[in-house]
Amino acid sequence: MSETHSSTNTSDASKIFPEEKPGWHGYIEWEDKPEKKALAQKILKSKKFPYPPEFQLAPLPKTNPILIGHRWKAYHAALGIEKIVDDSWKTVQEEKPNLIHLLDFPYNGETRRHQLLEGKLTDNKYHFVRNHGGIPSVEEDVLELEIGGLVNKTVKLSLADLKDPAKFPQVELTVTLQCSGTRRYEQILQYPGDGDELINAPWGEGAIGTAVYRGVPLKKVLKLACGGVKPECQHLEFIGVDTYFKKNNVYNYAVSVPWRKVKQNEEVILAWEMNGKPLPKAHGAPLRLVVTGYIGARSCKWVYKINALAEPSMGPVQQQEYLYFTSQIGKQNTKFSNGFSIQQMPVSSAIITPEDKEVIIHDGKITLKGWAYSGGGNWVERVEVSSDGGSVWYAVNADDMTEKHYHAWRLWKIDVPVDAEGWLEFCVRTWDSSNNTEPTFVRSAWNWDLHVTSSCHRIKLYSVNTSRPATAQRLKDMEAQGVPFEPLTRPLEFSPEDVNEYSTAMKRHPREPLN
Amino acid sequence: MSETHSSTNTSDASKIFPEEKPGWHGYIEWEDKPEKKALAQKILKSKKFPYPPEFQLAPLPKTNPILIGHRWKAYHAALGIEKIVDDSWKTVQEEKPNLIHLLDFPYNGETRRHQLLEGKLTDNKYHFVRNHGGIPSVEEDVLELEIGGLVNKTVKLSLADLKDPAKFPQVELTVTLQCSGTRRYEQILQYPGDGDELINAPWGEGAIGTAVYRGVPLKKVLKLACGGVKPECQHLEFIGVDTYFKKNNVYNYAVSVPWRKVKQNEEVILAWEMNGKPLPKAHGAPLRLVVTGYIGARSCKWVYKINALAEPSMGPVQQQEYLYFTSQIGKQNTKFSNGFSIQQMPVSSAIITPEDKEVIIHDGKITLKGWAYSGGGNWVERVEVSSDGGSVWYAVNADDMTEKHYHAWRLWKIDVPVDAEGWLEFCVRTWDSSNNTEPTFVRSAWNWDLHVTSSCHRIKLYSVNTSRPATAQRLKDMEAQGVPFEPLTRPLEFSPEDVNEYSTAMKRHPREPLN
Repeated sequence: MSETHSSTNTSDASKIFPEEKPGWHGYIEWEDKPEKKALAQKILKSKKFPYPPEFQLAPLPKTNPILIGHRWKAYHAALGIEKIVDDSWKTVQEEKPNLIHLLDFPYNGETRRHQLLEGKLTDNKYHFVRNHGGIPSVEEDVLELEIGGLVNKTVKLSLADLKDPAKFPQVELTVTLQCSGTRRYEQILQYPGDGDELINAPWGEGAIGTAVYRGVPLKKVLKLACGGVKPECQHLEFIGVDTYFKKNNVYNYAVSVPWRKVKQNEEVILAWEMNGKPLPKAHGAPLRLVVTGYIGARSCKWVYKINALAEPSMGPVQQQEYLYFTSQIGKQNTKFSNGFSIQQMPVSSAIITPEDKEVIIHDGKITLKGWAYSGGGNWVERVEVSSDGGSVWYAVNADDMTEKHYHAWRLWKIDVPVDAEGWLEFCVRTWDSSNNTEPTFVRSAWNWDLHVTSSCHRIKLYSVNTSRPATAQRLKDMEAQGVPFEPLTRPLEFSPEDVNEYSTAMKRHPREPLN
Repeated sequence: MSETHSSTNTSDASKIFPEEKPGWHGYIEWEDKPEKKALAQKILKSKKFPYPPEFQLAPLPKTNPILIGHRWKAYHAALGIEKIVDDSWKTVQEEKPNLIHLLDFPYNGETRRHQLLEGKLTDNKYHFVRNHGGIPSVEEDVLELEIGGLVNKTVKLSLADLKDPAKFPQVELTVTLQCSGTRRYEQILQYPGDGDELINAPWGEGAIGTAVYRGVPLKKVLKLACGGVKPECQHLEFIGVDTYFKKNNVYNYAVSVPWRKVKQNEEVILAWEMNGKPLPKAHGAPLRLVVTGYIGARSCKWVYKINALAEPSMGPVQQQEYLYFTSQIGKQNTKFSNGFSIQQMPVSSAIITPEDKEVIIHDGKITLKGWAYSGGGNWVERVEVSSDGGSVWYAVNADDMTEKHYHAWRLWKIDVPVDAEGWLEFCVRTWDSSNNTEPTFVRSAWNWDLHVTSSCHRIKLYSVNTSRPATAQRLKDMEAQGVPFEPLTRPLEFSPEDVNEYSTAMKRHPREPLN
């Protein structure tokens, strides 16, 4: 980006795109203002922006934040709205200081492993965050939710209206939300894929979390406030306050879910409370959607507009992203229409402890812990673990899993019998209430956009079985000599066999045949 | 290592361990001088040395030299013989400036890919080098080869004696030498193993090379000069001028091969010429063994002593190293007697071009080139390549391979039909004259010491097939817009589908069912 152009245009632009209305910080209306949108596009087209960071063909930096969103910061700067960038980071530091900061802007933060297993519900402070733009800060008492399109009556509702139990019945739902990119890093490590402008973040197993959300079913709001939807309505589009960029165009974040999904009463709610506390800003305060069983992207945060539509949203997040391609589709031939839209999440699971490449010293059993989840209203029935790469499977005891929910994960724990030593391949698979289970290998379901890594999660552990006499003796010898077992790759500092023992062995089994 | 102790002892030590005799630079006799050996051990035991560099649990540095042999340099410094370190590096810079310097000391250098495929014979300048100690510099006219032990007559031969065709018949052999660690990096990447004091170098596919060696068969020398070996002789031990360290002891490099192997006349030779030129110092000048079909370690360089023995050499390189363990043996239970001795190399092969993770734009065929080799006197019969991870195999045309040799590789080339796009797994396997072929996966033959990576070599290529219309069109569009295809992960800078085309597609195949 040219520095000279940048600074000139920035001061101009900050007058052109001021905040929309009092109390709505970080909000600029684009969808209703075609002339502003066109002007922003003109400015963006006139500039060059840095490429997204390369982290697929190179190792991931060891820093925290891991990746820096230079490109999106430059977009904001070009329009003179870089205050959004600074304010977002302040909010992250207040609300989410302990996450793994995968990308600083738009903020993508992943839950650390030990916090993932603390209990069925993820603490608000530790719940993962995946944003597509800055974190706005809309004051609760000024928020107005506008519902329009193919409804019998267009309405504007205040948060007070929505929270009034006399007007709308409230519900509490236990819901697991998951980024469709959870465990993407496993795909990246094997085969780099689309970089995307707003990077396909290299998520591990922590882009998932569970909370109890309080709110009102969208179906009830549509019925009680709008007198229902028109017969042509097939989709509900949700629009968020946050600003989104795509190929030199600017948008408010927009996605949609089918009316059929919303109709199932308590499966799509407008929520303002998370685990008994007000929704954090990073999670969509003052009001967000919670769409059960769907990818997190559909649970629109900072929602201020809902449109009843005949077709799915044409917002780029809905139309152009979160598409599931076959392996024959890639940079050489992708189109939006040749991938299917990722809405419901399939059954998946992950081993959270131990971690990949750990050395485990044990006496015949290794304890594994993790999560298991299925979307689309399926619940988790059975979790199975293998210590041999997927040949023999051991089922987790039902007592060692958290309770069943229609829309939430189950945490699990198992003591797996392990005789073998050396590097072993542990993997997990889950069966859901529709008898779905997981693809076997990353390769089985690899796709260009690196979504939905639901293949059996695999880790390598180095097993040291002290119930084997030779192993027990070696550990004793090491202890006597003050030699630690790890790092595994450090050579033994003493000789593991004396000359007499060696010679005796060679007499019994000589190196070469005698004749 | 304590700096104070070091400097004091260094100056003492340099007087204690001077060079052995005039013209024998870099040579210190340890095997015949138990009192010197004991003193060196005492000095080494009194010091602490840096650990070998960690490169298995961390990414390999991008430097050249890639790894630095601090530990071995410190061993030499402790004994006041650090001149060996400096002289070795000077020789490397003279003789091997263009190798990949895997380890600077003891020098381990790997041939670069394009130099590997230049022809059936590897240029001396590019041939890989794997040393276990410093590179000595023994003047040709002072060299004396002593042959003793279970021979009928102990002799000392000058190089002039050996080179005299009236005394010994000369032969020329075309021989592939290979480090038993060739392709070790594939094992490391999947499962770290033993670090070893003199690191298990992270070799790629270039720790192999072929040359024509001129010399005399050892069998003839034993017969003509020593009057033959005694009936109890079962092994021939070769001792090199270079100094070797193992667990605070010091040795001259020593290995052995069976008498049965030597008896096969032209399979073990004493060589002084490589590809028609005098042997380079890095390759063992003035005299070395060339043991056909065996791991490179047995082809003792800078040889000055040969012992006829009843049992294999007890030198640590022979007794304690180059052992092949089952996967149940590791740091927790290794002994020298529970691995078998790696002498002959199995059948193996490698794809040299293209390289792993390359993007290949083609019109239905991809050209692959590589090497194939088998040890133990087996020759390469057939090379096969798969573009689907090992399901369908295409054989290399016999015209596209270099000629057969009993003891040398064949270079090969194939145009593989490729329809599929995206990430494909190419692999190669070779069949030898005993109908041996290669293990399927790294896992199939992984072993703690990370030796003999002979599993099917696998690479991932991103295939872009321009004989497919949609792909041809996309490449045209990219060219028209001046957008390069690579890096693969960089997002397309234009929209791959306009709204009309998308809407038409959605009408034919809507996102959700109609009912």
